[in-house]
Formats: sequence, structure tokens, C-alpha cells
Amino acid sequence: MSSLRSLTEQVRVFAVERDWEQFHTPKNLAMALAGEVGELLAEFQWLTPEQSAAVMSDPVLGPRVRAELGDVMIYLVRLADVLGVDPLQAAESKLAESGRRYTVEAAKASATKIPQP
Amino acid sequence: MSSLRSLTEQVRVFAVERDWEQFHTPKNLAMALAGEVGELLAEFQWLTPEQSAAVMSDPVLGPRVRAELGDVMIYLVRLADVLGVDPLQAAESKLAESGRRYTVEAAKASATKIPQP
Amino acid sequence: MSSLRSLTEQVRVFAVERDWEQFHTPKNLAMALAGEVGELLAEFQWLTPEQSAAVMSDPVLGPRVRAELGDVMIYLVRLADVLGVDPLQAAESKLAESGRRYTVEAAKASATKIPQP
Amino acid sequence: MSSLRSLTEQVRVFAVERDWEQFHTPKNLAMALAGEVGELLAEFQWLTPEQSAAVMSDPVLGPRVRAELGDVMIYLVRLADVLGVDPLQAAESKLAESGRRYTVEAAKASATKIPQP
Repeated sequence: MSSLRSLTEQVRVFAVERDWEQFHTPKNLAMALAGEVGELLAEFQWLTPEQSAAVMSDPVLGPRVRAELGDVMIYLVRLADVLGVDPLQAAESKLAESGRRYTVEAAKASATKIPQP
Repeated sequence: MSSLRSLTEQVRVFAVERDWEQFHTPKNLAMALAGEVGELLAEFQWLTPEQSAAVMSDPVLGPRVRAELGDVMIYLVRLADVLGVDPLQAAESKLAESGRRYTVEAAKASATKIPQP
Repeated sequence: MSSLRSLTEQVRVFAVERDWEQFHTPKNLAMALAGEVGELLAEFQWLTPEQSAAVMSDPVLGPRVRAELGDVMIYLVRLADVLGVDPLQAAESKLAESGRRYTVEAAKASATKIPQP
Repeated sequence: MSSLRSLTEQVRVFAVERDWEQFHTPKNLAMALAGEVGELLAEFQWLTPEQSAAVMSDPVLGPRVRAELGDVMIYLVRLADVLGVDPLQAAESKLAESGRRYTVEAAKASATKIPQP
């Protein structure tokens, strides 16, 4: 069964087997994460909003976007693992905080509705 | 119980309740993800590798890094949800592919050992 | 008279006066540049293409975009200075190379016209 | 003679000749800029601070870093041009503002000296 915990473990083993732990400081992994997000951005940069919404139906772009998203996920769980942070709990804490800052009532009432997150 | 699926559902409800689905095109979410990764990078930019490795013990920086990591996770699961991609499967496919490209033997034999991922 | 050389000199003096040269390794400056670009992205993330085209007319967003662009410029010239690279020459070399890869004829003939750069 | 103004003009002609103005909204160009910065980051991600400081002496990495820096410059001047912002003036305004926020005295007196910019 696939789970975030299992993926984290697989990525850790992958790094250990290749003797890459020496490179995997949080600083370096944050950079690698950003580099992968840059590649993901590049897939979307010239698309219209509508084209971006249909990207997974594209036989060329769809698999590329999926692969880039996979790369981002890999580095995110690796960074969280090295930091000793549970990324699900970190996300849920942040979501709860955002819920207090951006109440449903305020968001609905706002004309501009600048979304966050 | 916390799981990636549950987080995905919570983030979706969060967006729907606030009428933010209109903003959540893949293109926009990729940008938001990149913006959050930029904030995460900023926490590490002036730290030495050693300081970055100890960042979670810092009473000021630790919670900030955790919060930024949470934000990145939120946008990543939201983007994956909107695209209809399972981020765990995407990561595992990519990891398998990387395992074929960077075999343990080759990585260990390489003097430079440029790590990937 | 304002010039890229003069800006480079001003930014260098700014760093030296504050004893910040110790932090300004290329690695750290590349991260800082990326962090600033993340802030620039954040200004555009929820805008439609049309809204983004009119952003400088917005009394709130216009000055923010200008300030973020200034930050990006500052770190780019600082990074180039520390590396000993002339950013104008680097750009012109790259543009010439792109001109050979993406000829006018090919770009015009292409239906999809994926632009680069 | 090479100048920022001349580069801006060259990049504009490059885009016009290829009929790429249709893609060059500020939103798209900000994404492209971020994508290029991601490639620049990737060059530095596994380097130690010391290795990053010597990167231009490396016969393989040096030209790559220079090329990536050129790409970043190209998109930055293109974005500024499309927005109608003078990037030098924007940088100088921001530097003056930073000088008021981070005075030389305060920066020197601070033990941690978190640099900005």
C-alpha cells in the first residue's frame, strides 16, 4: 500500500544506497526542491489558464507534468524527513491557521477574494 | 487518522467553501507553489550547511521552516488534486525511473557523485 | 547617470559597508535571487493574463511589482559581480545562441510556436 | 556599446520577429524568469559554499552558470520592458529603501547580521 510514510522510507533508502546523505542538507534539499518546482513552472509558463486546466489530456505534456510533480514530491518528503518534520501535520497546522485568518464569511464577502492559500 | 488523501480532501473543502476554485487553475497553483518554495528558500539562504542541519532546534527558525513546509505541501496536494494526479504514485514512478538512471553501482563508483534526485 | 555598472558598484558598497560579504557566496546569492523571484511570482499568481498586463496601473500592485523587480535586479547584479560575470554579455551570448536554435523562419512556421526564450 | 537599454531592445526585436509577443504577458514572463532561476539554482544545489565560490574556474560548470545567468537577465529585462519599468531605477529605489531599513550601524552592531539584501 502506498503511503507518504512508505515513500519517505523509499527515498531515504535511495539516498543511503547511493551515499548521497552527505549532499542532503536541508539547505541543499530546499534548493533542489526549488529547482524541480522551476521545471514544473516551465511546463505551464506559456499555457493559457484554459490550456493549463486540460494539460493532463495532452499526450506529450501530461506525462511531463506528472513526472515533474513526482520530482517535487520526492524532494519535499526528503527535505521533511531530513528535518524531522511530518509534512502532513505541518500542512494541517498551517491550514487550520489559514482558516482562522481567512474565514469563510470574509472570503465570500470580499469582492476581490484574494485567495490564500 | 492523517493521510495524504485526507489532507487533499481538507484543502479541497477549504477552497470550495471560500469560492476559490475559480483561481485554482494548474497554472496559478504552480505559481503559488513556487512562491511558497521561495519563502522556504529564504529561510535557508544565509545559513551555513551546518546551521541548516540544526534549523529545527532553533526556537525562531524551526517553527517558521515547519510552517513554510506546510504551505508547500498544501499547494502541492491542491495542484495534484486539480490535475487529477496521485502525487505518491507520480513520485514512486519517478523514483523507479531515477533508480534505473542512477544505479547504486554507478553512484558509488563515481568520484563526483552528483546526486540525483 | 544610471547604468548597470553603477548599480553593481552601489550594491557592492552596500554589502561591504554592512560586512555582508561573508554571506554573499554564489550559492547563497542564487538562493536569495530565487526567493525574490518567488515574491515577484506571488504578485502575479492569482491574476488573469489580462490583469497581469495592466498591473502597473494598479495603485497598490504596481508599486509592489516594481519593488520586487528591483529586488530581483539587485540580487542578479550582486551574483554576477561575485561570480565575475558580465550579465549583459552573458545575456547577449545566450540571445545569439537562442537565435540560432529558434530561427525566425522556424518560429513563424510552427503552429504551436513554443517560445524560447 | 553594450548597455541595458540595448539588450532590452534586442530582446524585444527577438520576440517580435518570432511573433512571441502574444505569449509575453507579465504573468507568463514572471513564470519564465522563475523557471530560469530554477535552472541557475540547480547548478549550485550540491556545491559547498567554497565550491560555489570557485564555480567560474570549472571548465564545465562555469560556462553553464554564465549561460543560466544570461537567461535570467534576458527574461528580467523582457519582463521589465513589457511592464514599462526601468529595472535600474527600480533597483536603486529599493536599495535606497533597504539602506534606511538596514543602517550600516545596525548591521555592524548586530551579532547575527541577517543580511538584507
